[in-house]
Amino acid sequence: MSFLHKEEHVDDNMVILQANLDDMNPEWTSYIMDKLFAQGANDVFWIPIIMKRGRPGVMLNVLVDASLAASMEEVMFAETTTLGIRSIRASCHRLAREIETVETVWGPIEVKVGYHRGNLVQYAPEFKECEEAAKRSGVPLKTVYDEVRRVFMERKADCAAD
Amino acid sequence: MSFLHKEEHVDDNMVILQANLDDMNPEWTSYIMDKLFAQGANDVFWIPIIMKRGRPGVMLNVLVDASLAASMEEVMFAETTTLGIRSIRASCHRLAREIETVETVWGPIEVKVGYHRGNLVQYAPEFKECEEAAKRSGVPLKTVYDEVRRVFMERKADCAAD
Amino acid sequence: MSFLHKEEHVDDNMVILQANLDDMNPEWTSYIMDKLFAQGANDVFWIPIIMKRGRPGVMLNVLVDASLAASMEEVMFAETTTLGIRSIRASCHRLAREIETVETVWGPIEVKVGYHRGNLVQYAPEFKECEEAAKRSGVPLKTVYDEVRRVFMERKADCAAD
Amino acid sequence: MSFLHKEEHVDDNMVILQANLDDMNPEWTSYIMDKLFAQGANDVFWIPIIMKRGRPGVMLNVLVDASLAASMEEVMFAETTTLGIRSIRASCHRLAREIETVETVWGPIEVKVGYHRGNLVQYAPEFKECEEAAKRSGVPLKTVYDEVRRVFMERKADCAAD
Amino acid sequence: MSFLHKEEHVDDNMVILQANLDDMNPEWTSYIMDKLFAQGANDVFWIPIIMKRGRPGVMLNVLVDASLAASMEEVMFAETTTLGIRSIRASCHRLAREIETVETVWGPIEVKVGYHRGNLVQYAPEFKECEEAAKRSGVPLKTVYDEVRRVFMERKADCAAD
Amino acid sequence: MSFLHKEEHVDDNMVILQANLDDMNPEWTSYIMDKLFAQGANDVFWIPIIMKRGRPGVMLNVLVDASLAASMEEVMFAETTTLGIRSIRASCHRLAREIETVETVWGPIEVKVGYHRGNLVQYAPEFKECEEAAKRSGVPLKTVYDEVRRVFMERKADCAAD
Repeated sequence: MSFLHKEEHVDDNMVILQANLDDMNPEWTSYIMDKLFAQGANDVFWIPIIMKRGRPGVMLNVLVDASLAASMEEVMFAETTTLGIRSIRASCHRLAREIETVETVWGPIEVKVGYHRGNLVQYAPEFKECEEAAKRSGVPLKTVYDEVRRVFMERKADCAAD
Repeated sequence: MSFLHKEEHVDDNMVILQANLDDMNPEWTSYIMDKLFAQGANDVFWIPIIMKRGRPGVMLNVLVDASLAASMEEVMFAETTTLGIRSIRASCHRLAREIETVETVWGPIEVKVGYHRGNLVQYAPEFKECEEAAKRSGVPLKTVYDEVRRVFMERKADCAAD
Repeated sequence: MSFLHKEEHVDDNMVILQANLDDMNPEWTSYIMDKLFAQGANDVFWIPIIMKRGRPGVMLNVLVDASLAASMEEVMFAETTTLGIRSIRASCHRLAREIETVETVWGPIEVKVGYHRGNLVQYAPEFKECEEAAKRSGVPLKTVYDEVRRVFMERKADCAAD
Repeated sequence: MSFLHKEEHVDDNMVILQANLDDMNPEWTSYIMDKLFAQGANDVFWIPIIMKRGRPGVMLNVLVDASLAASMEEVMFAETTTLGIRSIRASCHRLAREIETVETVWGPIEVKVGYHRGNLVQYAPEFKECEEAAKRSGVPLKTVYDEVRRVFMERKADCAAD
Repeated sequence: MSFLHKEEHVDDNMVILQANLDDMNPEWTSYIMDKLFAQGANDVFWIPIIMKRGRPGVMLNVLVDASLAASMEEVMFAETTTLGIRSIRASCHRLAREIETVETVWGPIEVKVGYHRGNLVQYAPEFKECEEAAKRSGVPLKTVYDEVRRVFMERKADCAAD
Repeated sequence: MSFLHKEEHVDDNMVILQANLDDMNPEWTSYIMDKLFAQGANDVFWIPIIMKRGRPGVMLNVLVDASLAASMEEVMFAETTTLGIRSIRASCHRLAREIETVETVWGPIEVKVGYHRGNLVQYAPEFKECEEAAKRSGVPLKTVYDEVRRVFMERKADCAAD
C-alpha cells in the first residue's frame, strides 16, 4: 500500500546539521532544498535569525540519518556560503504511516494516515493531488481539502459502526 | 517562602522535543501550550520557520524532563498534526530562585529573584500580579512594573547599607 | 528584447492587499501564491506575525494595480480563510529594465538589468536559467551565478573601455 | 442571530496605527493587546522586526476605525515605550458574517460563516467553544474542530440537495 | 536642553519606502542602515518575509519626510539589489521630547523623556551612555539601566512632592 | 598568512548555550553580543520566538567550546534576564581557511577563503575592509564586493591556466 516506513518506531541515529548564513543570496534556497531532499534528507527547513551586526540571516537545518551526514555536508559546503556546519544528535519518534485512497468527485486522492500505538491520530490529504484536482476542476483548493477530509472521516465512521 | 527549586543546580536529564508543523491550524497553539504546561513541561515555545515549498510553518519546542517525554509526546501526537517528533538531549543550568514580596500602593506584589553563586542577578515582578494591580487601579502596567522594581531595589540598597 | 516595462517610471495606482491569517493550513501558500501571480499580481509575499492569543499567523500581502484589486480579492476570499481584506494605496517607482544575454560555458543565460536615470544599477542572473545550467552540468548553482556575473561585468568593462 | 455586521461592505475609514518597539518588556504584550481590543480595535498584531543596531524589536499594529484612533494612541503611549506612532489609511473589505450553531455530541457549537456576494466562502468553528468542549470531554481539540466542520458541511449539503 | 523636536505634533508629510529583497547579501544591511540614517531617515528597519519560491527575504523599510524620499530612493537603488520601491503615505504623531541628565555613580547619563499632552509618559536611558558606563565600570549594562531609571524616578517623585 | 585555524577539522567539543528571553529590553542585544564574542564565543545569534501568553521573545544562542561554557554562562546570567540556560552538545565541521589579499583600485582588500578536502569552495570579501573602501571612495558597497570577487576569480582562473 505504500513505500513508507509502516511501523511506529524510534530512530536514535539521526543528526540535525545546521549552518548559519549571513552572506548568501536567498534565491538559492529552493534549489538547495531540492538537492538535499533528493540526496536523502528527511527534512530541510530554514529559520530566520539575527546574526553579527544585526544581519538578517537564515539558519539552514537538515535532519538526516547519521550515515548520510557526510554527503549532506558535501552539498551544504558546495551550494551555500558557509565555512562551518554544526551537527547535533537527535532521536526521531515516527508514527506508523499508511497511504489510503479516497474517492472524490475529482477522482481518487491519497491521504497520509498516522497511527500512534495502533490508533489513528493523523490524516492529511496529499497536497500535490489536491492541488492537481483544484487546478483541473477550478474548485478552490480548500474545498478539495475539506471534501477529502469529509469522505475520509465518513469512511472511518462507517468502519467503526460495522 | 516558595514552591520553587531553591538551590542553583544543573539538570542533565532534560530533553527538547520538536515538531515541525506545516499543515496545522494556528488557532490551536494556545490550547496545546496550556496542555503541555499542565502536564509538566518546563517550557513551551514556537519558532516561525520556512518549510518545504516555502511554507510558513512553526516548530513546536517542548523542554521537559526526560522522564516526562513520553507523556508530552502523547499530547503532541494527539493535539498537533505531526507525524514525527525529534528529541534532543540538553542540560539545564538553573539559578536558585526565591519569591519575595514587596509592598506597593496597590498592595503586596511578588518578585521572582534569581541567585547565581549566592549573588542576586535577576529580579522580575510577577506578571499576573502586576496585571491585576494595573487593572484594579487603572494605572499603566509599565508604571506598576517600574514601581515594583523601584521598591525592590530600594529595599536591597537598605539591606546592603545595614 | 524583452516583454518588460522598459522605461523607468512611477506608478501611483497600486494597492497592497493584506489578509491576516490565523486559522489557515500553511500547505496552501504556494498554490495561493501561484494563483495570484497568474492573475496579474506584481508581487506576493508572506509576513510571519503574532496574532490574538499569541497565535503564530501569517499576513498575506499582494501588490497589484488598483484595477486588478477586485479579481485579487476574489482569489483571496476563495482560497484563504480570511473574513476581511485590507487595502492600502501605494506608489511604485520601477527602474527601467532590460534582459541581456551572456554567453557561458553552459550556454546563453539571461541577466535582468536595471537602470536608474540611465545608469546601470542592478544586474541579476535569471534564477530559472542558472538553475537549469547547474542541473545540466552538475556545477554548484553559486558557481553558475558567479560566472554569469563575471562575464556580464567584463562585457560592461569592455564597453566602457571602447 | 448575531451582533456581527451582517452585510458585506467596504469601509474606507480605517487606519493602521504602528509603533516600532525596541526597548519594551515583551511580557506586556498580552495586556496591551487585551486593552486595545477592549477599547474597540478591529485587530491587533505584532510583527518581529530588526531595528537599529540589529535589535530584535516588534512592530505593534492596530487596525481601527479612524474615529477611534485618538483613544488607541492614548493606550499605546500609556502602555508601550514608544515616542511616536505612525498612521496609515486603509480600506477594509469585510464579508457578510453570520453565526450558525451546529449540534455535536459535545453540545451546540457556533460556527462563524462568511459570505462573499451571497456565496458561502468561509466557515470557522468558534475557538472558545471548541476549546471548552475539548476540555470538558477530554477529546483532542483537533477532533472537535473536525467534527464541527463535518456536521456543518453535511448540513449545507443537505440544504443544497433540498 | 536638546536638539530634539520639543513640541508634540502630528506630521502628515511622511512616507514609508519599502523594498522586498530576495537576492541581496545580508552582510550589507548595517551599512545600508547607517547610510540611510546619515541622510536623514527617521527610522530604518527590516522585516523577515517569505517571497516567491519560498525564499527567506527581507523587506527594507525607511520612514522619512516626503521631501527626502528621492534621496533615500537614490541610496536604496544604489546600495540594495531592488528593481522597484514602494511608497506609502503616513502621518506620524510624535511626543514632545526632552533630554534630561541624571547623576549616577558612573557620572552623568542622559535620559530621553517623552510627554503626551504635557504628561510624562516615557523615559528611556540613552543606550550609548549606559553602554559606555558599563564598559568603563565593569558593571552589567542592565544594572546601569536600572540605576539610571531609579534615580530618574526618584527625582520625579521629589519634584511631585514639592 | 592568517591567525585562523588552517586545517579542515571536526571539533566534537562544542556546546550551544540557549536562553529564552521574554522580559528583556532588546536594546541590550548588541552589547551582549559584543561581550560574548569578546570572551571567546565562536558564534552568537538570536532567534525570534513566541513564548508563553504569545509573547514575542528571543532565544539567545551561543556556540562555544565546552571549556568556555562556564564563562559564557557567567555573562549570560549577568547581562540578560534569564533564570536558566540550556546546553546542547554539538560537533562543528570547519573548513580550512585562509586569508588572501586582492589588489583593487581602492587598495588591497582581504578575502576569506574556505577549502573542503583541498578544494576551494568559499570565498568571501571581508566586510569591514569593503565597507571602509566604500566609505572612502563613495562607491556603492555592492560595487566593491563585486569588484573584489571579480579580481579574486580572475586570479584563480590565471593560476589554473598556468
